[in-house]
Amino acid sequence: MSRTVVMKFGGTSVGTTERIAAVADRVCKHVQETGDSVVVVVSAMSGETDRLISLSNAVNQGKPPVREYSQLLASGEMVSSALTSMAIQKKGLKSHSLMAHQVRMITKRSFGQDLILDVDSSRIKELLAENIVPVVCGFQGIDDKGDFTLLGRGGSDTTAVAIAAALDSAPCYILTDIDGVYSALPKLCPKAKKLNKLTYEEMLEMASSGAKVLQSRSVSLARTFKVPLWVCSSFSNEEGTEIVEEYPGMEEAIVSGITCRTDEAKLTLRNIPDEPGYAGAVLSALAEVGINVDMIVQSQGESGRAELSITLDRADLSRAEEALQGLVENRLDGVRLESDAKIAKLSIVGEGMRNHPGIAAKIFEILGANKINIELITTSEIKVSVALSDEVAEKAVQILHQHFVENR
Amino acid sequence: MSRTVVMKFGGTSVGTTERIAAVADRVCKHVQETGDSVVVVVSAMSGETDRLISLSNAVNQGKPPVREYSQLLASGEMVSSALTSMAIQKKGLKSHSLMAHQVRMITKRSFGQDLILDVDSSRIKELLAENIVPVVCGFQGIDDKGDFTLLGRGGSDTTAVAIAAALDSAPCYILTDIDGVYSALPKLCPKAKKLNKLTYEEMLEMASSGAKVLQSRSVSLARTFKVPLWVCSSFSNEEGTEIVEEYPGMEEAIVSGITCRTDEAKLTLRNIPDEPGYAGAVLSALAEVGINVDMIVQSQGESGRAELSITLDRADLSRAEEALQGLVENRLDGVRLESDAKIAKLSIVGEGMRNHPGIAAKIFEILGANKINIELITTSEIKVSVALSDEVAEKAVQILHQHFVENR
Repeated sequence: MSRTVVMKFGGTSVGTTERIAAVADRVCKHVQETGDSVVVVVSAMSGETDRLISLSNAVNQGKPPVREYSQLLASGEMVSSALTSMAIQKKGLKSHSLMAHQVRMITKRSFGQDLILDVDSSRIKELLAENIVPVVCGFQGIDDKGDFTLLGRGGSDTTAVAIAAALDSAPCYILTDIDGVYSALPKLCPKAKKLNKLTYEEMLEMASSGAKVLQSRSVSLARTFKVPLWVCSSFSNEEGTEIVEEYPGMEEAIVSGITCRTDEAKLTLRNIPDEPGYAGAVLSALAEVGINVDMIVQSQGESGRAELSITLDRADLSRAEEALQGLVENRLDGVRLESDAKIAKLSIVGEGMRNHPGIAAKIFEILGANKINIELITTSEIKVSVALSDEVAEKAVQILHQHFVENR
Repeated sequence: MSRTVVMKFGGTSVGTTERIAAVADRVCKHVQETGDSVVVVVSAMSGETDRLISLSNAVNQGKPPVREYSQLLASGEMVSSALTSMAIQKKGLKSHSLMAHQVRMITKRSFGQDLILDVDSSRIKELLAENIVPVVCGFQGIDDKGDFTLLGRGGSDTTAVAIAAALDSAPCYILTDIDGVYSALPKLCPKAKKLNKLTYEEMLEMASSGAKVLQSRSVSLARTFKVPLWVCSSFSNEEGTEIVEEYPGMEEAIVSGITCRTDEAKLTLRNIPDEPGYAGAVLSALAEVGINVDMIVQSQGESGRAELSITLDRADLSRAEEALQGLVENRLDGVRLESDAKIAKLSIVGEGMRNHPGIAAKIFEILGANKINIELITTSEIKVSVALSDEVAEKAVQILHQHFVENR
């Protein structure tokens, strides 16, 4: 039976005109061999977005106005979609490229991000009915005035899933320069395993903890609309990783994947008096200057007073220190602000954790035995994250991968 | 009194981020010093359109599909308009960039060209009412489906005039890398004069005869809607050339300008029998393969039979010969096809010609005295065009400029 599928190709996959020809070849072969109707979504050619950002920097010498920045960056996908559509036509199929306003990919601004509200799939369905392959610009949206907006780094994944959702939850293939999701970065852990299946939940935790393979928003959208999602290589035909609601045996392996971010920093406020609202004031001061915090840990410190530690992007550290300076200096009770710029965050993710309490303790034990100090720890249902010095992060990933993945 | 004016900047004027800053500076100074409301129209950064064309060539190895080619090339103005808008904001004014679909610049395809049908000025008027400087992408249109179309090389001039027309025939300034329209190319005739005023008619004849300063369609649109039009330098504040319906003394100078195209070719069919419809068949055969002809001259040749000569773009010559080959070979009556690839066309334009018959004769006389052979000649009310060997074209321009412009 003929189906509709969405295939998303990232910037590396459309990075040169030769690669665009290879993408066209893959799309056309898929159509001819399976009879599927294919909707293509593309990112900008790799390097193009950076070129546009540097033009913007040259003009603005600072923060660019959002509306024009969106209009500028959206041009990158306009180029790659038109070239991909031409290449598909060259291989003998009909094809049209479509920008965000042509598929009415409507977004709404919320906390500094543009989130997809709605997609009008009628134009795409019309094209498919005429056997025309739509090539949709990833990364772009439009606001209620029809002006361009952006879905953030990796936003083309979200474009692809949103279109798949609008096409009655069509299967969505994210074709990229790796051949699936791994239990850890293979260059860090040579014995890392390609994961055949992952739950949305696992993928979401991994994506938001540093696995760069998918924008986390796309996973969350896929989960909501039950879009069948695959991550596979655009360069080979090997099976990739399938993201599903559940899979047999998912509770047996405690750990599915280990991710690591090495670009974090830590701020610690010590000697906080036992008084309500202090943590709230700290987080508000950071939110006001647009800084996202990652881990938040409050604990009882020395002499009965509290300690509050947060991790954040290293690039935001000095702005965060400035924002909190007032809060600390205006107090006479000796609150101290300390910072550490060299922090990594390591996350261990797995559905199996739901039924295996004590993983956090096990992690402490293993790392402790290897003389690796954990600075902070947070846990969720299926994830344990630890902050540690970035100098020992790689070693910690290798040790934990060996213990939880390789030796099972 | 506060007015609205349209200022169009070409590719060289927005060719670098430094030049874009200079454009922004000029626009902001104009607004602050005069109180005028300004609508900006920009071309793509110089070199950008060629870069996009070479990407298209790499994918298509031949003629690209029109719809995708338009989408691809329209991205060039998307970049320059966003950067220009950012630069204007940097100088302290509010500004929004707008693409063709955001101003509903609707075009209609006619004989291989996309012509402007309509512009919706409501969004522009709304922005002006809020003191926001609109920066409109030149060169682009949309068709009735909302897909991008292109207005041809130099099409941004036409965008600017169309917007000026829609804004109740607002004055339109074409800001470019020259400081006005000259009586001849200054590098060819060092004594060439900058023309303070020209009639629409004169400008139209010059633009369609090789003066690259304005797209001829823009002049014709300006004439229809009585849009006051100026050509001036984007780099200096000198007075440019004003294009008007009429100006005092316009009939006194016989010749306003001399233009020259050196990229033409000539086809001659000799020994045509005296039979109706032959010229029509020749022109139809060329039209079928999409070749535009320029000059067409039919004359009585040797032995009472006719001769038909046409000039055309040199790049089209071999396709034209192919298209006519059948027409010649299928006849037994000895029609011969000859071609000359090295033809230039020189045009002498001036309102004064209306009242001075015999200019063509004078041109023959002057060139003859200088041993320059004229191959073809056509005349209109205010123009005489001659085709001649491209080797003598420059000399011919200099001699005629000396006689008709410098020595008066």
